[in-house]
Amino acid sequence: MKLNKSTKILITGLGLIGGSYARGLKKAGHTVFAIDVDPEAIRYALDNGIIDEGATTPDPALLAKADIVVIALYPHLVKDWINDNQKYLRRGALITDVTGVKSCIVYDIQELLREDLEFIAAHPMAGREVYGVKNSDESIFKNANYIIVSTDANTFNAIELCKGLAETLGFSRISSLPPKAHDEMIGFVSQLTHLIAVCLMTCSKSEHLVDYTGDSFRDLTRIANINENMWSELFLLNKPALLAQMKKFMDEFSLIYDMLKCDDVEALKQKMILSTERRKLFDK
Amino acid sequence: MKLNKSTKILITGLGLIGGSYARGLKKAGHTVFAIDVDPEAIRYALDNGIIDEGATTPDPALLAKADIVVIALYPHLVKDWINDNQKYLRRGALITDVTGVKSCIVYDIQELLREDLEFIAAHPMAGREVYGVKNSDESIFKNANYIIVSTDANTFNAIELCKGLAETLGFSRISSLPPKAHDEMIGFVSQLTHLIAVCLMTCSKSEHLVDYTGDSFRDLTRIANINENMWSELFLLNKPALLAQMKKFMDEFSLIYDMLKCDDVEALKQKMILSTERRKLFDK
Repeated sequence: MKLNKSTKILITGLGLIGGSYARGLKKAGHTVFAIDVDPEAIRYALDNGIIDEGATTPDPALLAKADIVVIALYPHLVKDWINDNQKYLRRGALITDVTGVKSCIVYDIQELLREDLEFIAAHPMAGREVYGVKNSDESIFKNANYIIVSTDANTFNAIELCKGLAETLGFSRISSLPPKAHDEMIGFVSQLTHLIAVCLMTCSKSEHLVDYTGDSFRDLTRIANINENMWSELFLLNKPALLAQMKKFMDEFSLIYDMLKCDDVEALKQKMILSTERRKLFDK
Repeated sequence: MKLNKSTKILITGLGLIGGSYARGLKKAGHTVFAIDVDPEAIRYALDNGIIDEGATTPDPALLAKADIVVIALYPHLVKDWINDNQKYLRRGALITDVTGVKSCIVYDIQELLREDLEFIAAHPMAGREVYGVKNSDESIFKNANYIIVSTDANTFNAIELCKGLAETLGFSRISSLPPKAHDEMIGFVSQLTHLIAVCLMTCSKSEHLVDYTGDSFRDLTRIANINENMWSELFLLNKPALLAQMKKFMDEFSLIYDMLKCDDVEALKQKMILSTERRKLFDK
Protein backbone atom coordinates (compact mmCIF):
# COMPACT_ATOMS: atom_id res chain seq x y z
CA MET A 1 0.00 0.00 0.00
CA LYS A 2 1.22 3.49 -0.84
CA LEU A 3 -0.25 6.66 0.69
CA ASN A 4 -2.16 8.64 -1.93
CA LYS A 5 -5.48 10.43 -2.24
CA SER A 6 -7.36 7.16 -2.70
CA THR A 7 -6.14 5.89 0.70
CA LYS A 8 -9.20 5.76 2.97
CA ILE A 9 -8.60 6.59 6.60
CA LEU A 10 -10.81 5.77 9.57
CA ILE A 11 -10.37 7.61 12.86
CA THR A 12 -11.80 6.18 16.04
CA GLY A 13 -12.16 8.75 18.82
CA LEU A 14 -13.10 12.10 17.36
CA GLY A 15 -11.72 14.42 20.03
CA LEU A 16 -9.22 17.23 19.69
CA ILE A 17 -6.47 15.10 18.15
CA GLY A 18 -8.76 12.74 16.18
CA GLY A 19 -10.71 15.72 14.87
CA SER A 20 -7.53 17.57 13.90
CA TYR A 21 -6.28 14.46 12.04
CA ALA A 22 -9.64 14.27 10.24
CA ARG A 23 -9.51 17.92 9.17
CA GLY A 24 -5.93 17.71 7.94
CA LEU A 25 -6.40 14.43 6.06
CA LYS A 26 -9.68 15.56 4.48
CA LYS A 27 -8.09 18.81 3.31
CA ALA A 28 -5.29 16.75 1.76
CA GLY A 29 -7.87 14.91 -0.33
CA HIS A 30 -8.36 11.68 1.59
CA THR A 31 -11.70 10.02 2.25
CA VAL A 32 -12.09 10.15 6.04
CA PHE A 33 -14.41 8.06 8.21
CA ALA A 34 -14.89 8.44 11.95
CA ILE A 35 -16.33 6.50 14.84
CA ASP A 36 -17.17 8.17 18.13
CA VAL A 37 -19.63 7.22 20.87
CA ASP A 38 -20.87 10.80 20.98
CA PRO A 39 -23.54 11.40 18.28
CA GLU A 40 -22.99 15.17 18.66
CA ALA A 41 -19.34 14.83 17.67
CA ILE A 42 -20.20 12.80 14.58
CA ARG A 43 -23.01 15.16 13.58
CA TYR A 44 -20.77 18.20 14.01
CA ALA A 45 -18.01 16.60 11.92
CA LEU A 46 -20.43 15.66 9.14
CA ASP A 47 -22.12 19.07 9.14
CA ASN A 48 -18.78 20.82 8.88
CA GLY A 49 -17.32 18.58 6.20
CA ILE A 50 -14.61 17.30 8.53
CA ILE A 51 -15.43 13.66 7.69
CA ASP A 52 -17.14 11.82 4.83
CA GLU A 53 -18.97 9.20 6.87
CA GLY A 54 -19.37 8.53 10.57
CA ALA A 55 -20.90 6.14 13.09
CA THR A 56 -21.39 5.98 16.84
CA THR A 57 -20.51 2.28 17.07
CA PRO A 58 -17.75 0.27 15.31
CA ASP A 59 -19.87 -0.26 12.20
CA PRO A 60 -18.46 -3.35 10.37
CA ALA A 61 -19.30 -1.91 6.93
CA LEU A 62 -17.37 1.29 7.68
CA LEU A 63 -14.41 -0.55 9.21
CA ALA A 64 -14.17 -2.79 6.15
CA LYS A 65 -13.64 0.23 3.91
CA ALA A 66 -10.60 1.64 5.74
CA ASP A 67 -7.02 1.25 4.50
CA ILE A 68 -5.60 2.92 7.57
CA VAL A 69 -7.16 3.09 11.03
CA VAL A 70 -6.03 5.79 13.46
CA ILE A 71 -6.88 5.07 17.10
CA ALA A 72 -7.33 8.36 18.92
CA LEU A 73 -9.07 7.01 22.02
CA TYR A 74 -8.16 7.35 25.68
CA PRO A 75 -5.09 5.16 26.34
CA HIS A 76 -6.88 2.45 28.37
CA LEU A 77 -9.30 1.76 25.50
CA VAL A 78 -6.76 1.17 22.73
CA LYS A 79 -5.96 -2.52 23.24
CA ASP A 80 -9.58 -3.59 23.74
CA TRP A 81 -10.77 -1.65 20.74
CA ILE A 82 -8.33 -3.45 18.46
CA ASN A 83 -9.06 -6.81 20.05
CA ASP A 84 -12.80 -6.37 19.58
CA ASN A 85 -12.80 -4.87 16.10
CA GLN A 86 -9.87 -6.25 14.14
CA LYS A 87 -12.15 -8.94 12.73
CA TYR A 88 -13.98 -6.30 10.68
CA LEU A 89 -10.87 -4.77 9.08
CA ARG A 90 -9.92 -5.42 5.48
CA ARG A 91 -6.98 -7.67 4.72
CA GLY A 92 -3.66 -5.81 4.99
CA ALA A 93 -5.04 -2.75 6.76
CA LEU A 94 -2.61 -0.65 8.79
CA ILE A 95 -3.46 0.47 12.33
CA THR A 96 -1.72 3.35 14.07
CA ASP A 97 -2.43 5.41 17.19
CA VAL A 98 -1.75 8.75 18.90
CA THR A 99 -1.21 7.50 22.47
CA GLY A 100 1.30 9.33 24.65
CA VAL A 101 2.82 6.16 26.17
CA LYS A 102 3.97 3.13 24.23
CA SER A 103 5.72 0.21 25.97
CA CYS A 104 2.58 -0.78 27.84
CA ILE A 105 0.47 -1.15 24.70
CA VAL A 106 2.55 -1.71 21.58
CA TYR A 107 3.89 -5.22 22.29
CA ASP A 108 0.53 -6.51 23.54
CA ILE A 109 -1.23 -5.20 20.45
CA GLN A 110 1.33 -6.62 18.05
CA GLU A 111 0.90 -9.95 19.88
CA LEU A 112 -2.88 -10.09 19.59
CA LEU A 113 -3.09 -8.82 16.03
CA ARG A 114 -4.30 -10.87 13.03
CA GLU A 115 -1.34 -11.94 10.93
CA ASP A 116 -2.27 -9.89 7.89
CA LEU A 117 -2.73 -6.63 9.85
CA GLU A 118 0.03 -4.35 11.12
CA PHE A 119 0.10 -1.96 14.06
CA ILE A 120 2.63 0.85 14.13
CA ALA A 121 2.70 3.15 17.14
CA ALA A 122 3.05 6.89 16.67
CA HIS A 123 3.03 9.89 18.97
CA PRO A 124 1.96 13.25 17.61
CA MET A 125 3.32 15.65 20.26
CA ALA A 126 0.55 18.19 20.00
CA GLY A 127 -2.25 19.24 22.27
CA ARG A 128 -4.18 22.16 23.63
CA GLU A 129 -5.89 23.01 26.89
CA VAL A 130 -9.24 22.58 25.09
CA TYR A 131 -11.04 19.40 24.08
CA GLY A 132 -13.34 17.85 21.55
CA VAL A 133 -13.84 17.93 17.79
CA LYS A 134 -15.31 21.44 18.00
CA ASN A 135 -11.90 22.74 19.05
CA SER A 136 -10.00 20.61 16.55
CA ASP A 137 -7.65 22.42 14.20
CA GLU A 138 -5.02 20.84 11.99
CA SER A 139 -2.73 23.83 12.50
CA ILE A 140 -1.81 22.45 15.95
CA PHE A 141 0.55 20.09 14.10
CA LYS A 142 2.57 22.91 12.59
CA ASN A 143 5.89 23.26 14.46
CA ALA A 144 5.08 20.07 16.37
CA ASN A 145 7.03 16.81 16.67
CA TYR A 146 5.82 13.45 15.42
CA ILE A 147 7.54 10.36 16.74
CA ILE A 148 7.27 6.98 15.03
CA VAL A 149 7.64 4.34 17.74
CA SER A 150 8.32 1.26 15.65
CA THR A 151 9.38 -2.17 16.92
CA ASP A 152 11.15 -5.11 15.26
CA ALA A 153 7.72 -6.33 14.19
CA ASN A 154 7.16 -3.35 11.91
CA THR A 155 7.75 -3.34 8.18
CA PHE A 156 9.55 -0.69 6.20
CA ASN A 157 6.32 -0.07 4.30
CA ALA A 158 4.37 0.67 7.51
CA ILE A 159 7.05 3.08 8.68
CA GLU A 160 6.86 4.87 5.34
CA LEU A 161 3.05 5.09 5.51
CA CYS A 162 3.24 6.43 9.04
CA LYS A 163 5.78 9.03 7.97
CA GLY A 164 3.54 9.93 5.04
CA LEU A 165 0.61 10.59 7.40
CA ALA A 166 2.80 12.90 9.49
CA GLU A 167 4.00 14.77 6.40
CA THR A 168 0.44 15.15 5.14
CA LEU A 169 -0.61 16.55 8.52
CA GLY A 170 2.20 19.10 8.41
CA PHE A 171 4.36 18.09 11.37
CA SER A 172 7.60 20.02 11.33
CA ARG A 173 9.82 17.31 12.79
CA ILE A 174 9.39 13.58 12.23
CA SER A 175 11.67 11.26 14.16
CA SER A 176 11.69 7.74 15.52
CA LEU A 177 12.43 6.14 18.87
CA PRO A 178 12.07 2.61 20.27
CA PRO A 179 9.23 2.23 22.84
CA LYS A 180 11.42 2.24 25.95
CA ALA A 181 13.43 5.31 24.90
CA HIS A 182 10.19 7.05 23.90
CA ASP A 183 8.62 6.45 27.29
CA GLU A 184 11.70 7.65 29.16
CA MET A 185 11.88 10.77 27.02
CA ILE A 186 8.17 11.50 27.42
CA GLY A 187 8.41 10.83 31.16
CA PHE A 188 10.97 13.61 31.29
CA VAL A 189 9.98 16.30 28.78
CA SER A 190 6.22 15.97 29.09
CA GLN A 191 4.98 14.08 32.15
CA LEU A 192 7.52 15.40 34.67
CA THR A 193 6.91 18.96 33.48
CA HIS A 194 3.14 18.58 33.83
CA LEU A 195 3.53 17.30 37.40
CA ILE A 196 5.88 20.17 38.26
CA ALA A 197 3.31 22.64 36.94
CA VAL A 198 0.53 20.99 38.92
CA CYS A 199 2.71 20.94 42.04
CA LEU A 200 3.51 24.67 41.70
CA MET A 201 -0.22 25.42 41.74
CA THR A 202 -1.06 23.11 44.63
CA CYS A 203 1.93 23.57 46.98
CA SER A 204 0.87 27.06 48.04
CA LYS A 205 -2.40 28.95 48.30
CA SER A 206 -1.66 30.97 45.20
CA GLU A 207 -4.96 32.71 44.45
CA HIS A 208 -3.81 36.00 45.99
CA LEU A 209 -0.68 35.99 43.82
CA VAL A 210 -2.52 36.73 40.59
CA ASP A 211 -1.64 40.40 40.91
CA TYR A 212 2.08 39.82 41.22
CA THR A 213 2.90 37.00 38.84
CA GLY A 214 5.20 37.73 35.99
CA ASP A 215 5.85 35.75 32.85
CA SER A 216 8.04 33.17 34.60
CA PHE A 217 5.29 31.84 36.80
CA ARG A 218 2.75 31.97 33.99
CA ASP A 219 5.09 30.03 31.69
CA LEU A 220 5.83 27.36 34.26
CA THR A 221 2.18 26.80 35.10
CA ARG A 222 0.42 27.08 31.73
CA ILE A 223 0.14 23.29 31.58
CA ALA A 224 -1.22 23.12 35.14
CA ASN A 225 -4.58 23.50 33.38
CA ILE A 226 -4.85 19.79 32.72
CA ASN A 227 -7.38 17.05 31.86
CA GLU A 228 -7.18 14.92 35.01
CA ASN A 229 -8.78 11.84 33.43
CA MET A 230 -6.46 11.55 30.47
CA TRP A 231 -3.29 12.51 32.31
CA SER A 232 -3.84 10.23 35.30
CA GLU A 233 -4.08 7.37 32.79
CA LEU A 234 -0.90 8.45 31.01
CA PHE A 235 1.00 8.85 34.29
CA LEU A 236 0.00 5.40 35.55
CA LEU A 237 0.70 3.69 32.22
CA ASN A 238 4.23 5.10 32.31
CA LYS A 239 4.71 4.70 36.05
CA PRO A 240 8.22 3.18 36.24
CA ALA A 241 9.78 5.66 33.80
CA LEU A 242 7.95 8.62 35.32
CA LEU A 243 8.84 7.71 38.92
CA ALA A 244 12.48 7.42 37.86
CA GLN A 245 12.40 10.89 36.29
CA MET A 246 10.65 12.39 39.31
CA LYS A 247 13.25 10.84 41.58
CA LYS A 248 16.11 12.28 39.52
CA PHE A 249 14.49 15.72 39.61
CA MET A 250 13.87 15.55 43.38
CA ASP A 251 17.44 14.48 44.11
CA GLU A 252 18.85 17.33 42.04
CA PHE A 253 16.44 19.85 43.54
CA SER A 254 17.39 18.87 47.06
CA LEU A 255 21.06 19.16 46.10
CA ILE A 256 20.39 22.74 44.97
CA TYR A 257 18.47 23.34 48.22
CA ASP A 258 21.52 22.25 50.21
CA MET A 259 23.84 24.48 48.17
CA LEU A 260 21.69 27.49 49.03
CA LYS A 261 21.37 26.45 52.65
CA CYS A 262 25.17 26.21 52.99
CA ASP A 263 25.85 29.42 51.03
CA ASP A 264 27.75 27.41 48.43
CA VAL A 265 27.67 30.21 45.85
CA GLU A 266 30.20 28.62 43.52
CA ALA A 267 28.24 25.37 43.24
CA LEU A 268 25.01 27.31 42.63
CA LYS A 269 26.69 29.33 39.90
CA GLN A 270 28.00 26.15 38.24
CA LYS A 271 24.45 24.79 38.07
CA MET A 272 23.23 28.01 36.46
CA ILE A 273 26.11 28.05 33.99
CA LEU A 274 25.31 24.46 32.98
CA SER A 275 21.58 25.14 32.68
CA THR A 276 22.20 28.25 30.56
CA GLU A 277 24.57 26.35 28.27
CA ARG A 278 22.12 23.45 27.82
CA ARG A 279 19.07 25.65 27.42
CA LYS A 280 20.68 27.58 24.58
CA LEU A 281 20.58 24.39 22.47
CA PHE A 282 16.80 24.41 22.76
CA ASP A 283 16.21 27.82 21.24
CA LYS A 284 14.34 27.32 18.04
CA MET B 1 8.16 67.61 45.14
CA LYS B 2 5.72 66.65 42.40
CA LEU B 3 6.69 64.56 39.39
CA ASN B 4 6.69 66.66 36.25
CA LYS B 5 8.89 67.23 33.23
CA SER B 6 11.27 69.41 35.18
CA THR B 7 12.01 66.56 37.61
CA LYS B 8 15.61 65.52 37.00
CA ILE B 9 16.36 61.83 37.37
CA LEU B 10 19.72 60.18 37.88
CA ILE B 11 20.19 56.48 37.25
CA THR B 12 23.14 54.63 38.65
CA GLY B 13 23.82 51.31 36.92
CA LEU B 14 23.04 51.61 33.23
CA GLY B 15 22.27 47.98 32.41
CA LEU B 16 19.13 46.47 30.90
CA ILE B 17 16.77 47.85 33.55
CA GLY B 18 18.61 51.13 34.21
CA GLY B 19 18.88 51.72 30.46
CA SER B 20 15.20 50.96 29.93
CA TYR B 21 14.29 53.39 32.72
CA ALA B 22 16.48 56.03 31.07
CA ARG B 23 14.85 55.56 27.66
CA GLY B 24 11.32 55.66 29.05
CA LEU B 25 11.92 58.69 31.27
CA LYS B 26 13.76 60.60 28.55
CA LYS B 27 10.94 59.96 26.08
CA ALA B 28 8.49 61.27 28.68
CA GLY B 29 10.39 64.56 28.71
CA HIS B 30 12.58 64.24 31.81
CA THR B 31 16.21 65.27 32.05
CA VAL B 32 18.07 62.01 32.67
CA PHE B 33 21.60 61.55 34.06
CA ALA B 34 23.44 58.29 34.40
CA ILE B 35 26.46 56.87 36.20
CA ASP B 36 28.04 53.61 35.17
CA VAL B 37 31.57 52.26 35.65
CA ASP B 38 31.61 51.17 32.00
CA PRO B 39 32.62 54.10 29.72
CA GLU B 40 31.19 52.19 26.74
CA ALA B 41 27.72 52.11 28.33
CA ILE B 42 27.81 55.87 29.01
CA ARG B 43 29.12 56.69 25.53
CA TYR B 44 26.46 54.49 23.91
CA ALA B 45 23.69 56.12 25.96
CA LEU B 46 24.91 59.64 25.13
CA ASP B 47 25.36 58.84 21.42
CA ASN B 48 21.85 57.42 21.22
CA GLY B 49 20.13 60.19 23.14
CA ILE B 50 19.17 57.85 25.95
CA ILE B 51 20.59 60.21 28.60
CA ASP B 52 21.43 63.91 28.82
CA GLU B 53 24.63 63.63 30.86
CA GLY B 54 26.69 60.75 32.16
CA ALA B 55 29.76 59.90 34.22
CA THR B 56 31.79 56.79 35.05
CA THR B 57 32.21 57.74 38.70
CA PRO B 58 29.73 59.24 41.18
CA ASP B 59 30.41 62.77 40.03
CA PRO B 60 29.38 65.13 42.90
CA ALA B 61 28.24 67.84 40.48
CA LEU B 62 25.93 65.43 38.64
CA LEU B 63 24.57 63.93 41.85
CA ALA B 64 23.76 67.37 43.18
CA LYS B 65 21.47 68.05 40.23
CA ALA B 66 19.18 65.03 40.68
CA ASP B 67 15.72 65.24 42.22
CA ILE B 68 15.27 61.49 42.08
CA VAL B 69 17.99 58.84 42.12
CA VAL B 70 17.22 55.36 40.80
CA ILE B 71 19.67 52.68 41.94
CA ALA B 72 19.82 49.95 39.29
CA LEU B 73 23.00 48.25 40.50
CA TYR B 74 23.64 44.63 41.46
CA PRO B 75 21.92 43.99 44.81
CA HIS B 76 25.09 43.75 46.91
CA LEU B 77 26.20 47.24 45.83
CA VAL B 78 23.05 49.15 46.75
CA LYS B 79 23.66 49.87 50.43
CA ASP B 80 27.28 50.88 49.98
CA TRP B 81 26.51 53.15 47.06
CA ILE B 82 24.00 55.10 49.14
CA ASN B 83 26.28 55.19 52.16
CA ASP B 84 29.19 56.52 50.08
CA ASN B 85 27.32 59.03 47.95
CA GLN B 86 24.39 60.42 49.91
CA LYS B 87 26.58 63.32 51.00
CA TYR B 88 26.50 64.69 47.42
CA LEU B 89 22.73 64.60 47.00
CA ARG B 90 20.61 67.72 47.08
CA ARG B 91 18.44 68.38 50.11
CA GLY B 92 15.13 66.46 49.95
CA ALA B 93 16.12 64.17 47.09
CA LEU B 94 14.26 60.88 46.74
CA ILE B 95 16.11 57.59 46.25
CA THR B 96 14.49 54.48 44.87
CA ASP B 97 15.77 51.16 43.50
CA VAL B 98 14.91 48.22 41.28
CA THR B 99 16.28 45.37 43.43
CA GLY B 100 14.47 42.03 43.40
CA VAL B 101 14.73 41.45 47.17
CA LYS B 102 13.85 43.95 49.84
CA SER B 103 13.92 43.02 53.55
CA CYS B 104 17.70 42.67 53.54
CA ILE B 105 18.31 46.20 52.27
CA VAL B 106 15.41 48.54 52.87
CA TYR B 107 15.59 48.84 56.66
CA ASP B 108 19.37 49.21 56.69
CA ILE B 109 19.22 51.94 54.09
CA GLN B 110 16.45 53.85 55.83
CA GLU B 111 18.55 53.61 59.00
CA LEU B 112 21.75 55.02 57.48
CA LEU B 113 20.08 57.76 55.44
CA ARG B 114 20.51 61.50 56.00
CA GLU B 115 17.40 62.89 57.68
CA ASP B 116 16.34 65.08 54.77
CA LEU B 117 16.57 62.25 52.19
CA GLU B 118 14.03 59.47 51.64
CA PHE B 119 14.51 55.96 50.28
CA ILE B 120 11.51 54.09 48.88
CA ALA B 121 12.00 50.55 47.63
CA ALA B 122 10.39 49.47 44.36
CA HIS B 123 10.49 46.32 42.28
CA PRO B 124 9.84 46.55 38.54
CA MET B 125 9.07 42.91 37.64
CA ALA B 126 10.58 42.99 34.21
CA GLY B 127 13.61 41.41 32.66
CA ARG B 128 14.98 39.66 29.62
CA GLU B 129 17.56 36.99 28.96
CA VAL B 130 19.82 39.71 27.52
CA TYR B 131 21.89 42.33 29.31
CA GLY B 132 23.27 45.82 29.09
CA VAL B 133 22.14 49.23 27.92
CA LYS B 134 22.45 48.17 24.28
CA ASN B 135 19.57 45.75 24.81
CA SER B 136 17.54 48.19 26.88
CA ASP B 137 14.00 48.86 25.69
CA GLU B 138 11.29 50.66 27.64
CA SER B 139 8.63 48.39 26.09
CA ILE B 140 9.67 45.61 28.52
CA PHE B 141 7.58 47.44 31.12
CA LYS B 142 4.38 47.12 29.14
CA ASN B 143 2.20 44.36 30.65
CA ALA B 144 4.64 44.14 33.57
CA ASN B 145 4.04 44.55 37.31
CA TYR B 146 5.55 47.26 39.47
CA ILE B 147 5.53 46.77 43.21
CA ILE B 148 6.06 49.61 45.66
CA VAL B 149 7.64 48.14 48.78
CA SER B 150 7.11 50.92 51.26
CA THR B 151 7.73 50.81 55.00
CA ASP B 152 6.40 52.85 57.92
CA ALA B 153 9.27 55.27 57.32
CA ASN B 154 7.93 56.30 53.91
CA THR B 155 5.88 59.41 53.29
CA PHE B 156 2.73 59.63 51.25
CA ASN B 157 4.54 62.00 48.89
CA ALA B 158 7.33 59.47 48.19
CA ILE B 159 4.78 56.74 47.47
CA GLU B 160 3.03 59.06 45.00
CA LEU B 161 6.32 59.94 43.28
CA CYS B 162 7.22 56.28 43.01
CA LYS B 163 3.81 55.49 41.54
CA GLY B 164 4.27 58.39 39.13
CA LEU B 165 7.56 56.92 37.88
CA ALA B 166 5.86 53.56 37.26
CA GLU B 167 3.01 55.22 35.39
CA THR B 168 5.44 57.22 33.28
CA LEU B 169 7.31 54.06 32.40
CA GLY B 170 4.08 52.37 31.31
CA PHE B 171 3.77 49.51 33.82
CA SER B 172 0.39 47.85 33.46
CA ARG B 173 -0.12 46.96 37.11
CA ILE B 174 1.12 48.97 40.07
CA SER B 175 0.62 47.48 43.51
CA SER B 176 2.22 47.60 46.93
CA LEU B 177 3.45 45.05 49.44
CA PRO B 178 5.39 45.26 52.73
CA PRO B 179 9.00 43.97 52.48
CA LYS B 180 8.38 40.59 54.13
CA ALA B 181 5.32 39.77 52.02
CA HIS B 182 7.18 40.96 48.92
CA ASP B 183 10.10 38.65 49.58
CA GLU B 184 7.87 35.65 50.26
CA MET B 185 5.92 36.30 47.09
CA ILE B 186 9.05 36.75 45.00
CA GLY B 187 10.59 33.65 46.58
CA PHE B 188 7.62 31.74 45.23
CA VAL B 189 6.65 33.21 41.86
CA SER B 190 10.12 34.17 40.66
CA GLN B 191 13.00 32.56 42.55
CA LEU B 192 11.47 29.11 43.05
CA THR B 193 10.46 28.98 39.39
CA HIS B 194 13.97 29.92 38.23
CA LEU B 195 15.49 27.18 40.38
CA ILE B 196 12.98 24.63 39.06
CA ALA B 197 13.90 25.59 35.50
CA VAL B 198 17.62 25.31 36.28
CA CYS B 199 17.05 21.94 37.97
CA LEU B 200 15.13 20.60 34.97
CA MET B 201 18.11 21.37 32.76
CA THR B 202 20.72 19.96 35.14
CA CYS B 203 18.99 16.83 36.53
CA SER B 204 19.31 14.90 33.29
CA LYS B 205 21.67 14.91 30.33
CA SER B 206 19.18 16.64 28.11
CA GLU B 207 21.20 17.59 25.04
CA HIS B 208 19.88 14.68 22.98
CA LEU B 209 16.29 15.68 23.79
CA VAL B 210 16.32 18.78 21.62
CA ASP B 211 14.61 16.86 18.82
CA TYR B 212 11.72 15.71 20.93
CA THR B 213 10.84 18.61 23.17
CA GLY B 214 7.44 20.16 22.79
CA ASP B 215 6.16 23.48 24.06
CA SER B 216 5.78 22.28 27.65
CA PHE B 217 9.46 21.67 28.21
CA ARG B 218 10.44 24.83 26.36
CA ASP B 219 8.03 26.89 28.47
CA LEU B 220 9.24 25.42 31.75
CA THR B 221 12.91 25.97 30.94
CA ARG B 222 12.94 29.33 29.14
CA ILE B 223 14.23 31.00 32.32
CA ALA B 224 16.93 28.33 32.76
CA ASN B 225 18.99 30.70 30.61
CA ILE B 226 20.03 32.79 33.60
CA ASN B 227 22.65 35.31 34.74
CA GLU B 228 24.41 33.31 37.45
CA ASN B 229 26.03 36.32 39.10
CA MET B 230 22.89 38.35 39.60
CA TRP B 231 20.64 35.44 40.52
CA SER B 232 23.02 33.84 43.01
CA GLU B 233 23.03 37.21 44.81
CA LEU B 234 19.25 37.42 44.76
CA PHE B 235 18.84 33.83 46.00
CA LEU B 236 21.26 34.34 48.90
CA LEU B 237 19.79 37.69 49.89
CA ASN B 238 16.37 36.05 50.15
CA LYS B 239 17.62 32.79 51.59
CA PRO B 240 15.13 32.15 54.44
CA ALA B 241 12.04 32.91 52.32
CA LEU B 242 13.36 30.98 49.33
CA LEU B 243 14.36 27.91 51.37
CA ALA B 244 10.86 27.88 52.87
CA GLN B 245 9.25 27.97 49.41
CA MET B 246 11.59 25.26 48.10
CA LYS B 247 10.73 23.09 51.08
CA LYS B 248 7.00 23.52 50.50
CA PHE B 249 7.42 22.61 46.85
CA MET B 250 9.56 19.56 47.63
CA ASP B 251 7.10 18.27 50.24
CA GLU B 252 4.20 18.60 47.81
CA PHE B 253 6.16 17.02 44.98
CA SER B 254 7.08 14.04 47.07
CA LEU B 255 3.43 13.68 48.10
CA ILE B 256 2.50 13.50 44.41
CA TYR B 257 5.33 11.00 43.88
CA ASP B 258 3.85 8.77 46.57
CA MET B 259 0.35 9.02 45.08
CA LEU B 260 1.67 7.77 41.76
CA LYS B 261 3.75 5.08 43.43
CA CYS B 262 0.68 3.76 45.28
CA ASP B 263 -1.64 4.06 42.27
CA ASP B 264 -3.78 6.55 44.20
CA VAL B 265 -5.61 7.76 41.09
CA GLU B 266 -8.29 9.67 42.98
CA ALA B 267 -5.76 11.73 44.95
CA LEU B 268 -3.80 12.47 41.76
CA LYS B 269 -6.97 13.62 40.02
CA GLN B 270 -7.85 15.88 42.95
CA LYS B 271 -4.45 17.60 42.64
CA MET B 272 -5.02 18.16 38.92
CA ILE B 273 -8.54 19.46 39.47
CA LEU B 274 -7.21 21.94 42.06
CA SER B 275 -4.33 23.03 39.83
CA THR B 276 -6.65 23.54 36.86
CA GLU B 277 -9.08 25.58 38.95
CA ARG B 278 -6.32 27.79 40.38
CA ARG B 279 -4.49 28.20 37.08
CA LYS B 280 -7.62 29.48 35.37
CA LEU B 281 -7.49 32.57 37.61
CA PHE B 282 -4.12 33.42 36.09
CA ASP B 283 -5.23 33.61 32.49
CA LYS B 284 -4.75 37.16 31.38
